[in-house]
Amino acid sequence: MPTVKRDTYTPDSLLSVAVRVFNERGYDGTSMEHLSKAAGISKSSIYHHVRGKEELLHRAISRALDSLFAVLDEPAAGEGRALARLEHVTRRTVEVLMSELPYVTLLLRVRGNTDTEVWAMGRRREFDQRVAELVKRAAADGDLRADVDARLATRLLFGMINSIAEWYRPDRAASGHGTGGGDTSAEVAEAVVRTAFAGLRTH
Amino acid sequence: MPTVKRDTYTPDSLLSVAVRVFNERGYDGTSMEHLSKAAGISKSSIYHHVRGKEELLHRAISRALDSLFAVLDEPAAGEGRALARLEHVTRRTVEVLMSELPYVTLLLRVRGNTDTEVWAMGRRREFDQRVAELVKRAAADGDLRADVDARLATRLLFGMINSIAEWYRPDRAASGHGTGGGDTSAEVAEAVVRTAFAGLRTH
Repeated sequence: MPTVKRDTYTPDSLLSVAVRVFNERGYDGTSMEHLSKAAGISKSSIYHHVRGKEELLHRAISRALDSLFAVLDEPAAGEGRALARLEHVTRRTVEVLMSELPYVTLLLRVRGNTDTEVWAMGRRREFDQRVAELVKRAAADGDLRADVDARLATRLLFGMINSIAEWYRPDRAASGHGTGGGDTSAEVAEAVVRTAFAGLRTH
Repeated sequence: MPTVKRDTYTPDSLLSVAVRVFNERGYDGTSMEHLSKAAGISKSSIYHHVRGKEELLHRAISRALDSLFAVLDEPAAGEGRALARLEHVTRRTVEVLMSELPYVTLLLRVRGNTDTEVWAMGRRREFDQRVAELVKRAAADGDLRADVDARLATRLLFGMINSIAEWYRPDRAASGHGTGGGDTSAEVAEAVVRTAFAGLRTH
């Protein structure tokens, strides 16, 4: 009696395979054929779960954006001096980037013309602008140095945060080698906050 | 009498067209056909100048690397306290990135399997390691805070520097709008040095 190959995928596990393939090949370079091979199920089984690859992209990007925007709704992001709120948002954004690494990496790499990509880029700009607002308020409070423009400061801050996606590999974190990309997200988040706000130099 | 279309390209002007196309389409996604169309000359005219697209990649990457490594040979990068040398290298690396933007952008995006790409990635790592050495020396001098690991500090520093390639557009610099990507390279370089070493916060 032949064994029946069961489709044991859930929408979530299929999503995780799709995100890996999108990050490896680029969204444009990924076909349903690639997704089918990577998941080890037929294309029609994939169509049982989703309408197509753009729906998978939309779900993956939504997961990253929901986690990032949730940071802005945390109490510590909304109460107290703007500088303390900004430091909290910086720390938590790093932590979200590291815990949702493949999803945030996909978001950071999106540069395309489909509706989903245009929407993702708009939502990412919106997040950046919310943080830029905090930078401006902290500068207005006199808590940020006046000789670095607020918009440039925001860009450099995100430059530092987003670059973590280039080198952080969670599989190395478990090995405990503290400096080879194996730092915990709390350590990296603290290092970003210290570097960006207090500076690397001893005073 | 028909006009004769002259091939007025020099190796340098052909290189600049090729780098623009490589950055737009990705190196893998660029064919000799694309280069021929963008340059407005025939493929055989291109072959008159170079053996193929990998030679153009090699020349472009060499231009970026030569400019970056030249920074390490500047007197201020080799004399005095490690911290002052590191600040000089940071400032000048930003300036080189901005003045050689398309070439350095191409270098930063290289992730491939051709000999030239493997060589480029190795040379880039070498540059990063030379800067990491300076970070370690400055830390050993007690000039850098002890609570941020030297390797992580180097990564965050390059994260900030390299991210400039994502938003800086020299055509906007001429318009004089100080904060929309139109900052001069000296202003941006100074902002990076202040942010990374002294921190954004007032003390």
